[in-house]
Amino acid sequence: MDINEAVSFLEKCDNVNIITHKGPDGDTLGCGFALVNFLREMGKKANVINDGEFPARYKFLYEGYYPMNFEEKCVIAVDVADRQLMGSRLEKYKADGIVDLCIDHHISNTFYAKQTLVDTKAAAACEAMYLIFEASGRPINDLIAKCLYTGIATDTGCFKYENTTPRSHIIASELMKFGIDHAKINRAMFDLKSKGRIMVEQAVTSSMEFFFNDRCSMITITSELISSSGIDPADFEGLTSITLQVEGVQLGLLVKQKGENTFKISARTTDEIDACAFCANFGGGGHVRAAGCEIKGSLEEVKAKLLDAVKNALDA
Amino acid sequence: MDINEAVSFLEKCDNVNIITHKGPDGDTLGCGFALVNFLREMGKKANVINDGEFPARYKFLYEGYYPMNFEEKCVIAVDVADRQLMGSRLEKYKADGIVDLCIDHHISNTFYAKQTLVDTKAAAACEAMYLIFEASGRPINDLIAKCLYTGIATDTGCFKYENTTPRSHIIASELMKFGIDHAKINRAMFDLKSKGRIMVEQAVTSSMEFFFNDRCSMITITSELISSSGIDPADFEGLTSITLQVEGVQLGLLVKQKGENTFKISARTTDEIDACAFCANFGGGGHVRAAGCEIKGSLEEVKAKLLDAVKNALDA
Repeated sequence: MDINEAVSFLEKCDNVNIITHKGPDGDTLGCGFALVNFLREMGKKANVINDGEFPARYKFLYEGYYPMNFEEKCVIAVDVADRQLMGSRLEKYKADGIVDLCIDHHISNTFYAKQTLVDTKAAAACEAMYLIFEASGRPINDLIAKCLYTGIATDTGCFKYENTTPRSHIIASELMKFGIDHAKINRAMFDLKSKGRIMVEQAVTSSMEFFFNDRCSMITITSELISSSGIDPADFEGLTSITLQVEGVQLGLLVKQKGENTFKISARTTDEIDACAFCANFGGGGHVRAAGCEIKGSLEEVKAKLLDAVKNALDA
Repeated sequence: MDINEAVSFLEKCDNVNIITHKGPDGDTLGCGFALVNFLREMGKKANVINDGEFPARYKFLYEGYYPMNFEEKCVIAVDVADRQLMGSRLEKYKADGIVDLCIDHHISNTFYAKQTLVDTKAAAACEAMYLIFEASGRPINDLIAKCLYTGIATDTGCFKYENTTPRSHIIASELMKFGIDHAKINRAMFDLKSKGRIMVEQAVTSSMEFFFNDRCSMITITSELISSSGIDPADFEGLTSITLQVEGVQLGLLVKQKGENTFKISARTTDEIDACAFCANFGGGGHVRAAGCEIKGSLEEVKAKLLDAVKNALDA
């Protein structure tokens, strides 16, 4: 589906449930709340739904939002590359033919929806969403601008990462003209830390392991570590970028326990390694510099499997 | 002086020494090496000079640069708000009537040069420099683009801080079209850390003091701390932003010993406090969110003076 078809779709739809991915980030929520505002401004009924509660960290995106009562007639997934990313509470949306439209930017999108707009050149799904809104000729408001800016800023590490393009900057400049408090948003998203978070970062940094002449770094977070620390589990989220902070590291891995014998892997890479291809070894996916997968087994088995794949990736 | 007058000045000048400020950062060096390339492309002789060696951290800005032999006929200072910022080795340039042109963006500029172009709306002096190059109608090359991008990125915390404007983003998008490796630059400027640096950050974070209900935070770095750590003194630079990382902090101070009884203060503020006005209490200056000053006295005296001023600033 192209942008103009997406515009037509939005003009025609009503009673829309907008699905965001589980463990929601700034991009999926930015997209979701931008779209729900856009549709409501058009006089339509729409809600944003998620596998869990909307995280308090992103409260500034959904202040003033309230769920509407309506009979669902349309389902749009935003920034959801695969139906499994909807989470267990949204099981009913995973069946074939349920999601009408998926708006995304992941190259790993599985085309599970009836119609899909995937702009893989977009740094964030919010960038694709901006282009749709722009093509519609309808005005956006400051709240929509704030949502879209947040999605682009968070998915690019504040315009830092390789996925940032000249277009990302141009869209950011347009969104800033709505008077959004970008410094406050960025401080909240990138700089502000709880004292617990600072302790967690110190702990994972000092226990980081290095392999293959420091070309690979690994952080391991077990359930036992989280529960024994007494620190809010939320403070153990989003630590993957720390793996890339030491000079010479080309592949940073964060291994986080999800269940007795299940580990979630997040991979970050510099330009020598394809993170998406690396995670595809284990049935995962994502972007070329940031991807993820899940591996079953004991921690030792999982680490051995990972290091085997790391060796291949570094040798390639 | 306006932009067109600056263009005329550059067209006419030759045998130019370009002065960058002491303790050089990405903006003064970005400006300096962008301008030296621009002038050399015009067939003129020009050098970049500094109080000390150019830091290895910014090597990518001056690779291929070589000093030229010529008799100095023109002096241009870039991103140098006050002549004292030239440093002790450039004493001869501090006299009246020596600096022909100063290109800057600091509201605290003291107009010490014969002519001054201060664009206080520019997030970086490199933004003002870009506008001059653009007005000249002359093409820039990828090396100049890399220098200017680096100055804008470093002075805005990668487009994170309040000083970032829509224009900063538009200029960044234009510069990115030269194919600069922005992700590599940003990783080197913002993410990469030596193992020594990681140790330093852990040490200053865990010893950070809080005052006035956590509204003010303070990091103290004595000469003794640096020498006893055995860590490269360079790893103790640029730690000020750490002071603002804890929620609720409105004024972050870094107190760093310069001599037996001299301390350099760096202040960072959120939008409640004017950092430049705060530092003006002690004869310093800078920007509204980031400023500096020097205070003489014992560490205890300096801290007492600072906390007195902090109290006034928070009460205001």
